[in-house]
Amino acid sequence: MSEIKKKLLIDMDGVISDVYGQFIKYEYNDIGLTQSLNDLKGKLEHQAFKYHDKYVNSENFFYSAIPIQGSIEAVRRLNDVYEVFIVSSAMQFPLSLTEKINWLTKYFPFLSWRQIVFCGTKDIVYGDIMIDDHFKNLDSFQGQTILFTQPHNIDKPKGKHTRVHNWKEIETILL
Amino acid sequence: MSEIKKKLLIDMDGVISDVYGQFIKYEYNDIGLTQSLNDLKGKLEHQAFKYHDKYVNSENFFYSAIPIQGSIEAVRRLNDVYEVFIVSSAMQFPLSLTEKINWLTKYFPFLSWRQIVFCGTKDIVYGDIMIDDHFKNLDSFQGQTILFTQPHNIDKPKGKHTRVHNWKEIETILL
Repeated sequence: MSEIKKKLLIDMDGVISDVYGQFIKYEYNDIGLTQSLNDLKGKLEHQAFKYHDKYVNSENFFYSAIPIQGSIEAVRRLNDVYEVFIVSSAMQFPLSLTEKINWLTKYFPFLSWRQIVFCGTKDIVYGDIMIDDHFKNLDSFQGQTILFTQPHNIDKPKGKHTRVHNWKEIETILL
Repeated sequence: MSEIKKKLLIDMDGVISDVYGQFIKYEYNDIGLTQSLNDLKGKLEHQAFKYHDKYVNSENFFYSAIPIQGSIEAVRRLNDVYEVFIVSSAMQFPLSLTEKINWLTKYFPFLSWRQIVFCGTKDIVYGDIMIDDHFKNLDSFQGQTILFTQPHNIDKPKGKHTRVHNWKEIETILL
């Protein structure tokens, strides 16, 4: 008899998809600006990138993002041990929905459509463990919380969450 | 100080969107067949409609569906009293995602993108009340469950759920 697997909720942007890298690339291509990590520190995406809305609403922005290093192999291994869900706050940008599905199919083909959740707020999903780069999602989550380091959260105290800097650390904690 | 509103999760297909009516219309236009309610009784959509997959994967199927009678006004009223979420198992049909967002914007413009959830399974959403026409979603839900009558469930015992036949009955129960 198989034991019940723990539900592991994994964020998309900034955790498995390098959306930050996209913003930097788009800003450089758009206005020739390359901000340093120091410029970006502590600012949310829409604060850090002046033309944030233009970029996220442009076709291909989400689909052409690069997977975050080590995420594919780590999620593949975690998927054997946990009931994995990819949970993304995608509703604000309707264009992103199909791109995100296609992106997941391309890079994470071992996940099924049953494991994907697109929402407006993460307040109504539950599970045992959440990996996210935003405090607003982790703070109200009832289970174990893992904060994935990104420039916008790097200068903030981790609070009750476990801070990780890469997918190797997540594997060490969860496998 | 405002009191915390109860979370009310409302299904889309077969509860606010008349997807059953769409299948009947598409089947008639496609092969000239009009099945009676008796033919459809107790069969899930993919059992009742031979070309189910073709229809759900065709452009405009979800967008051109008609709202179920009374749903717009009822959800508008419920939205004042409850924290309403529209929760739809949309992931199996990627084409439907954008159509469903656009459909909601058209008919339920008073709901915000924050109130929409598209998932593969409803196992990871939680709330206080769920309205759905499928037992698979209601049976594992922890809160109050309301079964919306559709031909596929009409001949099945309601079990622990409250069965309703229209949105007036829902208003009577919840308002």
